[in-house]
Amino acid sequence: MIKQTEITLPSFGRGFHLVTGLITEKISPLPETGLVNLFIKHTSAALTINENADPGVLTDMEYIMSKMVPEKDSNYVHTIEGPDDMPAHAKTTMTGISLTIPVTGGRLNLGTWQGIYLCEFRNRGGNRKIVATVYG
Amino acid sequence: MIKQTEITLPSFGRGFHLVTGLITEKISPLPETGLVNLFIKHTSAALTINENADPGVLTDMEYIMSKMVPEKDSNYVHTIEGPDDMPAHAKTTMTGISLTIPVTGGRLNLGTWQGIYLCEFRNRGGNRKIVATVYG
Amino acid sequence: MIKQTEITLPSFGRGFHLVTGLITEKISPLPETGLVNLFIKHTSAALTINENADPGVLTDMEYIMSKMVPEKDSNYVHTIEGPDDMPAHAKTTMTGISLTIPVTGGRLNLGTWQGIYLCEFRNRGGNRKIVATVYG
Repeated sequence: MIKQTEITLPSFGRGFHLVTGLITEKISPLPETGLVNLFIKHTSAALTINENADPGVLTDMEYIMSKMVPEKDSNYVHTIEGPDDMPAHAKTTMTGISLTIPVTGGRLNLGTWQGIYLCEFRNRGGNRKIVATVYG
Repeated sequence: MIKQTEITLPSFGRGFHLVTGLITEKISPLPETGLVNLFIKHTSAALTINENADPGVLTDMEYIMSKMVPEKDSNYVHTIEGPDDMPAHAKTTMTGISLTIPVTGGRLNLGTWQGIYLCEFRNRGGNRKIVATVYG
Repeated sequence: MIKQTEITLPSFGRGFHLVTGLITEKISPLPETGLVNLFIKHTSAALTINENADPGVLTDMEYIMSKMVPEKDSNYVHTIEGPDDMPAHAKTTMTGISLTIPVTGGRLNLGTWQGIYLCEFRNRGGNRKIVATVYG
């Protein structure tokens, strides 16, 4: 069994955002056993899985990534789309654009503290499209 | 064919550890052709594939990652779980929590120098759970 | 349906290179709906998906990654294969060695601006082997 769904996430501000609920409601019902692949069709936003409890983790993730890939670097040549654009591309590659998550007992088999993050690296990224492919 | 197994890795110290053998013995026998997805159910430990020969690579990986995401940064707000916790979350996102590996001829089709690493980013992470999903 | 192909990419210089065309011609025809997994069998080269339009992005990606993981660091212990080797291992883990891409309507369902990059982290990496596994 293969089922594919395109999900449009609403526009989020720059930073890290928990979207587990938004995504699971779009891909239900899930098979008893299988895998879900989530693939974001963009080059300046990413998907990751991380801590779902303390909002401070989301804040610190944005801080850490932006410190590692700073905007103020006169060596960048790809600057035409604004100072946040090239760092957004680099952060996307460091974070990754797809996730493959096991499905067990008809549910995403996430750990207790795991949630799905949309990582919005642009100041104004707009809507973001994700292709969800469910195998069971 | 889909087969799913939960694997509990024993407690490892902070750093990078080769676990190819520990994992392959839990997922055998493998189909002739297919894919294995390994998914770690944690937010401060990760999975990667890297050099399986020189233990110095494991040592340097820990050094490089800890230099990139230092513990001593007074801007962190998520500090309640100790100084190693927030950097561990960031390193987890940079490294990734799942691997999808081809199966060919009934074996993991890894390159000659490739091995599976458990990346333990906490000082005392304890046991770590991995869900292995085999498609064939 | 599962189909597996080993692809040998020609030798590329150090840096980021668009290989979408080289890869899609090797895995055609694709099923109507499914997933493609690409897995690079090396520990100093990686695969990512990023911007396919401005060559400046490729240049800046190399600059950013090499700044984050510098070669001149006397703390490295794995130095026997040359100064570019250990940084290449770390960049490989940060970038990732496999991609899972949805197939929709018989084509890779990439976003408008997305292309597949070979990330060559060695000065002279030589040919690189990729295993493509197509599920449909």
